[in-house]
Amino acid sequence: MFTRVNIMTFNISPPDGANDASIQAHLDSRLKPPGALGVLEATAASLVRILGPSTHAIRSPVMLLFAGDHGVSAEGVSIVAPSTTHLMVHHFLEGNASINSFCRQADLALKVIDCGTLQAHAPHPQLVDHRLGEMTAPFHREPAMTLEQLETGFENSRRLIGELHADGCNLIALGEMGIGNTTSASALMAALTHLPFDVCIGAGSGVTPTIMKRKQDIVQLGLQRHSQALQDTRTTLAALGGFEIVSMVGAILAAAEKGMVVLVDGFITTVAALCACRMAPEARGYLIFSHCGDERGHRPLLEQLDAVPLLHMGLRLGEGSGAALALPLLRSALAFYYEMASLEEAGLVL
Amino acid sequence: MFTRVNIMTFNISPPDGANDASIQAHLDSRLKPPGALGVLEATAASLVRILGPSTHAIRSPVMLLFAGDHGVSAEGVSIVAPSTTHLMVHHFLEGNASINSFCRQADLALKVIDCGTLQAHAPHPQLVDHRLGEMTAPFHREPAMTLEQLETGFENSRRLIGELHADGCNLIALGEMGIGNTTSASALMAALTHLPFDVCIGAGSGVTPTIMKRKQDIVQLGLQRHSQALQDTRTTLAALGGFEIVSMVGAILAAAEKGMVVLVDGFITTVAALCACRMAPEARGYLIFSHCGDERGHRPLLEQLDAVPLLHMGLRLGEGSGAALALPLLRSALAFYYEMASLEEAGLVL
Repeated sequence: MFTRVNIMTFNISPPDGANDASIQAHLDSRLKPPGALGVLEATAASLVRILGPSTHAIRSPVMLLFAGDHGVSAEGVSIVAPSTTHLMVHHFLEGNASINSFCRQADLALKVIDCGTLQAHAPHPQLVDHRLGEMTAPFHREPAMTLEQLETGFENSRRLIGELHADGCNLIALGEMGIGNTTSASALMAALTHLPFDVCIGAGSGVTPTIMKRKQDIVQLGLQRHSQALQDTRTTLAALGGFEIVSMVGAILAAAEKGMVVLVDGFITTVAALCACRMAPEARGYLIFSHCGDERGHRPLLEQLDAVPLLHMGLRLGEGSGAALALPLLRSALAFYYEMASLEEAGLVL
Repeated sequence: MFTRVNIMTFNISPPDGANDASIQAHLDSRLKPPGALGVLEATAASLVRILGPSTHAIRSPVMLLFAGDHGVSAEGVSIVAPSTTHLMVHHFLEGNASINSFCRQADLALKVIDCGTLQAHAPHPQLVDHRLGEMTAPFHREPAMTLEQLETGFENSRRLIGELHADGCNLIALGEMGIGNTTSASALMAALTHLPFDVCIGAGSGVTPTIMKRKQDIVQLGLQRHSQALQDTRTTLAALGGFEIVSMVGAILAAAEKGMVVLVDGFITTVAALCACRMAPEARGYLIFSHCGDERGHRPLLEQLDAVPLLHMGLRLGEGSGAALALPLLRSALAFYYEMASLEEAGLVL
């Protein structure tokens, strides 16, 4: 079904676990009851493990907001028109969408990656042109993309991550925009986890029961049509799309390769995280999960990844909103880890 | 049982609800599906209602960390010695406790209010001397404090809040420190809500089953001894303590009087919020609940107050830690409310 292509390999070493015991001992010896800072303690441990003992701060963090259009969006799987992807990219670049406010508040730079949308955008300092096409093919009829497109998406992201890393960035946050992409993401989740459809498929940005039924039908058709491709994560991704999801998978793998922190957002970005971890389980240790949102599949998906997210705020926007909102918590986790007095310094025994 | 004293009255008007419909309409017309920002939308609505339409930012926020010692701490209701309150105040002033890191990260000023601890502290620019005594009396044997002490605590807090308000502060965050204060707080919760002891009494900073049993016995004795006092919130507070809880109640009521936002932290500060709302239900609208922590009584207490907290991170430290961690979310809530484009501006219909 797919032509063979040159396959990019990512050379990922898991974060160095050699200091795990001393990290935990450091946490437990701070001036507080052990574990009293809840999930922030595990977050601190993850950050220290990823960044190593000499890096005490998050540096030049960037929100990468991946946008792409989906062939299945013509099938009425969303409440809004496919042109909304283009419109939202326009507003991300204008600076007046939710994610812009959240990035400004969190001192988080924003780049919008056009991975393939119906209309191209005029050049803009915050826009990265990584277009793999105008939109994916409708995956219930044919593969969403070719393996060449998939590999190009990986290469594009790897180059971008390399540039950010060279500029001193040690954390990327993931965001996405793409009308129809919960349908692709649900299909990927169902294909990779074998969980039932009604666990994997949710309301997206808010759909009617009729639209929900259509999403289920399309996912079912897609999984039947591409059953051969589903043996492998790469071909599963090419079969089910989308351009922005594939580009995110490439970004996660490339960031893990560089030893950077990857801050995951909502359902779609978590599906990308699952795909990346299936391709390279070594990448898992670089991921921090910002939140559990309201999209139906998000919680079981996080469980598949053994992920304990920081926020539970009933978000269902995407755009990287939860990741941007969580970034201050990561900074606070590192701050308390490195700044707090120890029980011993305080002369206290717990 | 109690001598009558001059009672301070707080003149609290609830936040102006006249614009509630237009606030909701504004939220629903932003460039996102209605409700897609979850609990952040209700937070934005609360902030806009409290601050009014012309104030678009949180200004000069201050963490007020109330410290006090408890007579019941001599009864072995905690894993640490009563002297730990003094020790922790020392570290708050040195700047190397958790809350210091979190306040620095959140650009939140910190004041420590000594409401009555076993040892007084040397003067310090961040220390406020509002000592009502060295510690409360053990409430299972006698009233924790006199009504004079309670009214003095209210007056002290009202004066402090007046000064902060005059300096342009429009938000106070509440924190507390006091070995033994989960026992006082649990007793207050049981007295005011009539919920069962095993709902109201939890592990505090981490206690053994033996200590837990002792906490229950002390609460039971206290509620029996002071049954007459429990008819009224003021006398309940004086009977069960503590100095820092009473001072927080005064601060909440005074801040509500001034139309300021009150950001509530964990179990103890939420008990203070319950007491304040029982004394003046008009105060409820000024409260924002930062988190639901791991202390057993916190969740049912939040339910009593019809509160939907922002964070669920398994915190059980106190010190105002959850409130400081949540402050960036409040700033983001106001930012998206005032900065985002509308659906109409974007030419989008949902």
